[in-house]
Amino acid sequence: MERKHHVVVVGGGFGGLACVRDLKHKDVEITLIDSRNHHLFQPLLYQVATSILPTSDIAWPLRHLLRDRPEVNTLMAEVNGVDPQAKTVSLADGDSVSYDTLVLATGARHSYFGHDDWETAAPGLKTLEDATAIRRRMLSAFEAAERTSDPEERKALLTFAVVGAGPTGVELVGIIAELAQRVLPREFRSIDTRDARVLLLEAGPRVLAAFPEDLSAYTEHALTELGVEVRAGTAVTACDEESITIGDECIPSRTAIWAAGVKASRAAQWLGLEADRAGRTPVGPELTVEDHPEIFVIGDTASVRNTDGKPVPGVAPAAKQQGEYVARLVASRLGKGRNPGPFVYKHKGSLATIGRKAAVADFGWIKLRGTLAWWVWGVAHIYFLIGTRNRVAVVWSWFWSHTTGQNSARLITQGKQGIAVPKVTQVE
Amino acid sequence: MERKHHVVVVGGGFGGLACVRDLKHKDVEITLIDSRNHHLFQPLLYQVATSILPTSDIAWPLRHLLRDRPEVNTLMAEVNGVDPQAKTVSLADGDSVSYDTLVLATGARHSYFGHDDWETAAPGLKTLEDATAIRRRMLSAFEAAERTSDPEERKALLTFAVVGAGPTGVELVGIIAELAQRVLPREFRSIDTRDARVLLLEAGPRVLAAFPEDLSAYTEHALTELGVEVRAGTAVTACDEESITIGDECIPSRTAIWAAGVKASRAAQWLGLEADRAGRTPVGPELTVEDHPEIFVIGDTASVRNTDGKPVPGVAPAAKQQGEYVARLVASRLGKGRNPGPFVYKHKGSLATIGRKAAVADFGWIKLRGTLAWWVWGVAHIYFLIGTRNRVAVVWSWFWSHTTGQNSARLITQGKQGIAVPKVTQVE
Repeated sequence: MERKHHVVVVGGGFGGLACVRDLKHKDVEITLIDSRNHHLFQPLLYQVATSILPTSDIAWPLRHLLRDRPEVNTLMAEVNGVDPQAKTVSLADGDSVSYDTLVLATGARHSYFGHDDWETAAPGLKTLEDATAIRRRMLSAFEAAERTSDPEERKALLTFAVVGAGPTGVELVGIIAELAQRVLPREFRSIDTRDARVLLLEAGPRVLAAFPEDLSAYTEHALTELGVEVRAGTAVTACDEESITIGDECIPSRTAIWAAGVKASRAAQWLGLEADRAGRTPVGPELTVEDHPEIFVIGDTASVRNTDGKPVPGVAPAAKQQGEYVARLVASRLGKGRNPGPFVYKHKGSLATIGRKAAVADFGWIKLRGTLAWWVWGVAHIYFLIGTRNRVAVVWSWFWSHTTGQNSARLITQGKQGIAVPKVTQVE
Repeated sequence: MERKHHVVVVGGGFGGLACVRDLKHKDVEITLIDSRNHHLFQPLLYQVATSILPTSDIAWPLRHLLRDRPEVNTLMAEVNGVDPQAKTVSLADGDSVSYDTLVLATGARHSYFGHDDWETAAPGLKTLEDATAIRRRMLSAFEAAERTSDPEERKALLTFAVVGAGPTGVELVGIIAELAQRVLPREFRSIDTRDARVLLLEAGPRVLAAFPEDLSAYTEHALTELGVEVRAGTAVTACDEESITIGDECIPSRTAIWAAGVKASRAAQWLGLEADRAGRTPVGPELTVEDHPEIFVIGDTASVRNTDGKPVPGVAPAAKQQGEYVARLVASRLGKGRNPGPFVYKHKGSLATIGRKAAVADFGWIKLRGTLAWWVWGVAHIYFLIGTRNRVAVVWSWFWSHTTGQNSARLITQGKQGIAVPKVTQVE
């Protein structure tokens, strides 16, 4: 029996999973490698960090998603290199896996713009552990504020700073402000949680820079109404566990969250290629790297230009489209379909929520804001969630949160017990 | 204005919370101290450990439960001592809290019978972190088995040993066996998860020793049908990360879970009293300690004798009844109700599930087993869960798990990424 063409996909995010999905019935063997056992629906991760959703509502075991695909082998393993000559991927535990076609879809983490030491003080939000760590810090800060008798300390504990006013930053501050203003006040005795200061810090001139200016202005206004202080146009210059400094202004704050900048995974290093400034691997119009048409790099870890020359944004739909494209191209090379030509990114629209009742949406042909945009956002996210169980569970959590004003997952876990000041920063 | 009587309750488990609840409208100030921010429904914790339920379905923030009780102050803090003369409780961060009445309801952890070094290899199940740590170990073992090419290693990875055949041990092995036999087989390619060996190890002569003998026999038979190997009558003599030894037989196993024995919290030490063998504080018929009628010790950390001289078991209903009793007694001392006399424990019955379709129940006047007992068990647990949100969420998770045969929370989190062998044992 002839050996089948072997596609190795590294990374079970939106890009990798779309590629595996669309390679169904294409007569290939597939190995999917991920260091985690689950696919994560990152667009709703901020709701785990802010205690609206439990972790398992937005994550699914990869091998469960692929249970009906006997030709797909799922490995939970960490990749630490690629040998393009030998056509093998090496794993951290010493094993190696040969490929005929390799798809690297290993994503990105946050960039601290050369200040990696800020990560301890201001963790980012990319994994379930990041989300539960941020949830722990935030809730612990309220607990510690309730206990302290020092007014300066209390003020610092009740100051929450989110750096970066892209969709994630906007979504985080919206929920944190609502938590402080509406969910928690009745539950604390010594503090008034409405005194909490929620800051959205942005180096650029406006929030949601990728959106049209009127939607940015609406978002800033809506956030201010929720009690958020928006500080655009000033970069963070220092950050530690006690305070965050923007320009010359030092603001005592015990809880900072980093939602700015992107640093790609090490795919370029593995391939011995020069990465761009954000660490991304440059790829050609077919999403392959130079001299190696059998190596694809897609999603947040790739630097892709659209047919119009503009860079493709690092968003979930782009990663998905790239995964689907690679599947089509690989199939066509094996004689299972026509050649799709160069990759073309189709921008479907941008969405961001503001608290639990408003959102902004820009579909190019129409712009929405407020309640209607929120419904569009909600329906779209439920639609793109994988699996009936999770759809029902998320709708139930949202329904509960909206009708009762209560968040369902306000748990402080995995931290040291009885911490007075939330210094638990290890993202493990 | 006269200062109100101040009741300090340490521990927000079943006992502490019942006490706080029943002190409503009794004209007392209450401070509830817990090192965690949440109350945990421990009877369903094994379902988190075995990936059926997400963490937030069985835990609620204490201050949320008490939001409508302005006279209750909730503190997230660790207690490290009591001064019965000064009538103060000292906290780990240096603060202290004065009381008029003190209720210690600080629970218990597992006892390793003098072998505390076994804890790393065979963690117990008392907290949410314990549950996610066990879930991680168990799921990681299947992942590592899928990857290894060494048959001996694979066998050890697919051997799961639960020590202690009380209700928790029985419930754990039932679900683990079902996972290996029914949920996972379709998802793995290199291994047949049905080869997994699930051991229930019990030093005593039979499983569920607290139940009538015929229900024990039924349980052992039902477990065997599920594929569990029940080994009663032999004690564990050694345990490390590579293997577990019962009598002289060394069984290579990478995943062991400890569900035997109980070691009470340090309440007796705080009070300078001599504890019993299990570390519990002896209390009199009014649940108070010698010479201090204002100090109550209740629940798993107390050694209580019923009016018939028999010891009161360390179960949730007993802790609840004790908390309710203390509330009544404190109220009567303040002239708000009649004196309840000595504490009387009313045993309502014992329940244990076997996998997801059977259970045993002993109510004294009637014994049940099989499907009917399972329904009684399910309805009782839903009834005793706190809050509509959680009831609906748990029913949904169970419904999903029963109809599809899939567990909803099969996530490996908080471990090191890309682990090949599940040696992640830190319970933090």
